[in-house]
Amino acid sequence: MTNPTAAMLVIGDEILSGRTRDSNMHHLATVLTQHGVTLAEARMISDDHASIVRHVAELSEAFDHVFTSGGIGPTHDDITAEAVAQAMGAACGIRDDARAILQAHYDKSGQELNEARLRMARIPDGAALIDNPISAAPGFTLGNVHVMAGVPTIFEAMLKGLLPTLTGGAPMVSASLRVERGEGDIAGPLGDLAEANPDVSLGSYPFTQNGIHGSNVVARSQDGAAVDRVMTALGALFPEAR
Amino acid sequence: MTNPTAAMLVIGDEILSGRTRDSNMHHLATVLTQHGVTLAEARMISDDHASIVRHVAELSEAFDHVFTSGGIGPTHDDITAEAVAQAMGAACGIRDDARAILQAHYDKSGQELNEARLRMARIPDGAALIDNPISAAPGFTLGNVHVMAGVPTIFEAMLKGLLPTLTGGAPMVSASLRVERGEGDIAGPLGDLAEANPDVSLGSYPFTQNGIHGSNVVARSQDGAAVDRVMTALGALFPEAR
Repeated sequence: MTNPTAAMLVIGDEILSGRTRDSNMHHLATVLTQHGVTLAEARMISDDHASIVRHVAELSEAFDHVFTSGGIGPTHDDITAEAVAQAMGAACGIRDDARAILQAHYDKSGQELNEARLRMARIPDGAALIDNPISAAPGFTLGNVHVMAGVPTIFEAMLKGLLPTLTGGAPMVSASLRVERGEGDIAGPLGDLAEANPDVSLGSYPFTQNGIHGSNVVARSQDGAAVDRVMTALGALFPEAR
Repeated sequence: MTNPTAAMLVIGDEILSGRTRDSNMHHLATVLTQHGVTLAEARMISDDHASIVRHVAELSEAFDHVFTSGGIGPTHDDITAEAVAQAMGAACGIRDDARAILQAHYDKSGQELNEARLRMARIPDGAALIDNPISAAPGFTLGNVHVMAGVPTIFEAMLKGLLPTLTGGAPMVSASLRVERGEGDIAGPLGDLAEANPDVSLGSYPFTQNGIHGSNVVARSQDGAAVDRVMTALGALFPEAR
């Protein structure tokens, strides 16, 4: 049984210039892993129409799901909706259902639904709206592409509503062992163990703490019994570890 | 005058599973911006040979520089060197210069240069070594691809040595204005200003602080005078801002 695959597309000049440190990719990775969806790739690109179109088309073709963040606000550099629509061959304009959501929101707060804010009602034909419980302006799902906001609190809230509607697979089971020996010391037996257990992904991550060079060994699989088996073998290989 | 372009390739299952939060991309973005190199794209992919080969080949063709992080340690899942070599059409094996660096390092610390550690001397033919002042095992530059470690302290140290050898362009000049009004309120005049100043990249980033919904407006250009001109205009548009 293979889990559904996904890619993430982080859209925004501010990420690539170093002005802003993206946190949405890490959040998505964590949440998808729990949900049994394999995040296979992430890309970070600039606010450029042709570039968004090309990457959305590529990723939408290659993976079961594509999640995007960024570029759906009211300003001139918010161009994601049109680009995603073009990539997926859909028309895009102000949609009545999205306009009604914005109108209600701004009526309540006594603000004007001006021309700029109305840009947030641009939704491709055929797309399903994604609820935004924080600031009303919706995201959308078009085909297998899920378009969400870049502001982390809004991205996370949108994802929380969206995720239960997506079919997940078996969540990954993982376990780790902290070995107070450098990777170079444990790499031999670790490689043999990995080869003997192709159903378990075995990774090793070096750390330095209080002057000790050690390795965190992580076993991951959809098969919990296989992870247990590998952890028992690891315990026998490195009896001093905990 | 156009600055050199770059892409980053972050290699590692642990990033895509959410176990580890990448910090190298943000560091690279910041440092390249200062050096006058435009980071145009970043990709995060898993420890998969075919996938590394394909992405390195694509990015190496499309950009002036490619920077990779991850997968050059001693363990079985460290497969970046062979994959980069294959992507660039080079042979890859244990190289004497890299072996001598490792031998000297482990002799000094009284550790054995075993088979696993020797894997870190696998360097493609024709590659130039990148110095690792922290743990000796070198990175390398092959063609326009710069291969570095995933551990952030080592990645940053390698980059610090590498960067002065790369020709940069004009560093980006940026300035920002904090406007205590929502994006929807300022988007109209901001869009007009952006259109009138195509040589300046004008971005707007919403924030919420102490109950205030505001926008940080950022102007970026290689042309410092153009940034000054736009900031003056912004001050006139939003006189209450600071």
